[in-house]
Amino acid sequence: MKQKRFILPESEIPTRWYNIQAEMKNKPMPMLHPGTKQPLKAEDLFPIFCEECSRQEVNTTDAWIDIPEEVREKYAYYRCTPLVRAYGLEKALDTPAHIYFKNESVSPVGSHKLNSALAQAYYCKQEGITNITTETGAGQWGAALSYAARVFGIECAVYQVKISYEQKPYRRSIMQVFGAQVTPSPSMSTRAGKDILTANPTCQGSLGTAISEAVELAQMTPNCKYTLGSVLNHVSLHQTVIGLEAEKQMAMAGEYPDVVIACFGGGSNFSGIAFPFMRHKILEGKNTRFIAAEPASCPKLTQGKFEYDFGDEAGYTPLLPMFTLGHKFQPALIHAGGLRYHGAGVIVSQLLKDGLMEAVDIEQLETFAAGCLFAKAEGIIPAPESCHAIAATIREAQKCKESGEEKVILFNLSGHGLVDMSAYDQYLAGALV
Amino acid sequence: MKQKRFILPESEIPTRWYNIQAEMKNKPMPMLHPGTKQPLKAEDLFPIFCEECSRQEVNTTDAWIDIPEEVREKYAYYRCTPLVRAYGLEKALDTPAHIYFKNESVSPVGSHKLNSALAQAYYCKQEGITNITTETGAGQWGAALSYAARVFGIECAVYQVKISYEQKPYRRSIMQVFGAQVTPSPSMSTRAGKDILTANPTCQGSLGTAISEAVELAQMTPNCKYTLGSVLNHVSLHQTVIGLEAEKQMAMAGEYPDVVIACFGGGSNFSGIAFPFMRHKILEGKNTRFIAAEPASCPKLTQGKFEYDFGDEAGYTPLLPMFTLGHKFQPALIHAGGLRYHGAGVIVSQLLKDGLMEAVDIEQLETFAAGCLFAKAEGIIPAPESCHAIAATIREAQKCKESGEEKVILFNLSGHGLVDMSAYDQYLAGALV
Repeated sequence: MKQKRFILPESEIPTRWYNIQAEMKNKPMPMLHPGTKQPLKAEDLFPIFCEECSRQEVNTTDAWIDIPEEVREKYAYYRCTPLVRAYGLEKALDTPAHIYFKNESVSPVGSHKLNSALAQAYYCKQEGITNITTETGAGQWGAALSYAARVFGIECAVYQVKISYEQKPYRRSIMQVFGAQVTPSPSMSTRAGKDILTANPTCQGSLGTAISEAVELAQMTPNCKYTLGSVLNHVSLHQTVIGLEAEKQMAMAGEYPDVVIACFGGGSNFSGIAFPFMRHKILEGKNTRFIAAEPASCPKLTQGKFEYDFGDEAGYTPLLPMFTLGHKFQPALIHAGGLRYHGAGVIVSQLLKDGLMEAVDIEQLETFAAGCLFAKAEGIIPAPESCHAIAATIREAQKCKESGEEKVILFNLSGHGLVDMSAYDQYLAGALV
Repeated sequence: MKQKRFILPESEIPTRWYNIQAEMKNKPMPMLHPGTKQPLKAEDLFPIFCEECSRQEVNTTDAWIDIPEEVREKYAYYRCTPLVRAYGLEKALDTPAHIYFKNESVSPVGSHKLNSALAQAYYCKQEGITNITTETGAGQWGAALSYAARVFGIECAVYQVKISYEQKPYRRSIMQVFGAQVTPSPSMSTRAGKDILTANPTCQGSLGTAISEAVELAQMTPNCKYTLGSVLNHVSLHQTVIGLEAEKQMAMAGEYPDVVIACFGGGSNFSGIAFPFMRHKILEGKNTRFIAAEPASCPKLTQGKFEYDFGDEAGYTPLLPMFTLGHKFQPALIHAGGLRYHGAGVIVSQLLKDGLMEAVDIEQLETFAAGCLFAKAEGIIPAPESCHAIAATIREAQKCKESGEEKVILFNLSGHGLVDMSAYDQYLAGALV
């Protein structure tokens, strides 16, 4: 019997996260204070984020950061996640490529987001924080943070982008089962939300708007910090457990990826799978390709500008050096709610600028076709976000079929789509564009 | 770090199913022909079921049945499933009990049902069958069979109990993504359905009714067989992979269960976890307790009669010797759709009669309270069916707290509840009874 899944024991859960900033030849440019335009230090971020995450955010010297034992203990609830050889998909595509995926959908909340949520909630608890706020699109991050807050005994308030709140009611319910307070954004509960609703009463929201609301609530609430599920350097850092495990698992399979692929919203799942492999490109010149797959309707990597921009719609955040469509950009109402964000993470933006990675943009219809093919072949219904990675993988596998090359492709299955079935319904009914 | 999950490598996927019939001191009584009242032989079942499953159904001599390599290969897509120490739940209950659960929710379709679906679809394919039909309640079995049919290239038609079809629309979508045809039952597409709808136009359906429709469609369709997701002996047989793995995993944990618990509809997940451990009770007199947890509103084990009864509402099936509420019983509209069945499997009925196991019945509200407690403690939102097993586990763990006993409790987490969030919504809103 050919081995299908490569499983690591609990003892192999990484003990350190990989901080690519320390090893990049061109360091990411610093965040700037929006008023003074001066580079920000860790302590400048303390009013918004917990202190440890703030320090991690600007740490460009330590390549390895210890994972607290309490976080590893909670990782053990679902990690190590399986690396899977996609024999079913290979057969369906009749490709000579060897396709592997890292299955982050097996986390209890259904996505990779828990890897950073547990870390952020833990640090907040350690620092005596009692309340945290956040934004969420499709709800993967919100669900993860709601659960992580419960684990460490913190109250959690989530602003969910209104279109996703309506498209994916089950994710709201999941957050509520974990005890979180969930508000559709834009809302009347913040100045940022009121301003937007006043200008556009039927606004369906965006991650940028929801971030503004969550930041504002955190600043108005005593003993409360804001947390973010993507974009930032410390989030990418926490997500590297994905790639660090995958590296060992690929070795178990006796292979090394020629191409590493992930979907792209702000960069969290892409960074997680890619950075540990990219390390070998930076340090040893390994010839691996890295592909970020973004929605054609929100194409910051392929069509955005590299410039300083706000991370949120209202302009509450520091200025970030990134590929961006502009912080006022309102993305189309695609089902991949987690990818509806105007900017790319700072590290990824630098890596793209330096030619260490590539990006492709994919139309929604192609992503759902890929998701259905994958579901039939591998049994797992992927999240609409993850469908972008699958579609990019299929493109590469088809190229291998044409060229006859037996390339090794690794992609990150960031989450399952069981709470996104209404999107599949619309796709099957021919009602999607 | 205390070990949380006990993981077996792919090579430890069982190579044989355990057939408890061969080792029971009192064999199950035979199925009877409804007309002649004569015991049925395997070939009498060939018109309804595939031949291999029919032979397995009446096999009371072979304790071990080889699992076909092609089925093991597909098991490897998700097996071995983890055995998990529920530290979070133990802490929440402040109990000295050691609680373990076998996590069958990690199967791609979200429940243990795939263990038998893959076997049945495989045998049908081997025998040249091109179409299969089935019934489903909550949709766990229907989703599993839809995927299994896709894996082996067979067409699949599912009658889903109407109340579940409406309560859980995402499960219908999941089946459709896998390419199945899904019809709410009772429907006008069969005589059985028409008769029921004529008598009661607003009938919300039951598993018994859906079985009648699926059997009738199979009999009217060329080269088509009927498949069942529970109750029957061959289904219980296939599910024993759960307990066979759990046995090895409990040994890894250095413990042996004092109590084994599962929810109970027709018996498939209960049999799966219990029979391999019950073997040691039968052969070696091990003093393990086995508890089947059924809904208070469908209490065949605790309040039914042991007698010959039909497996379906219309009376198309053979007569089965079982604990039953009568095949015309219409269960209350609880959310645990998979437990809304009037009868208990033949083997389990005999075991209960012989005092080898126990049953408890639990009110819906208690099950959802247990499910929410478990979700917060372990991060996994359980299926409403599985909530019954959790509620029974909590009762036992609380007894341990009172007595101070450090008992080892093992329960089967048959599936997750991510597609059942509307039920949780109602529970949290105080709208459930």
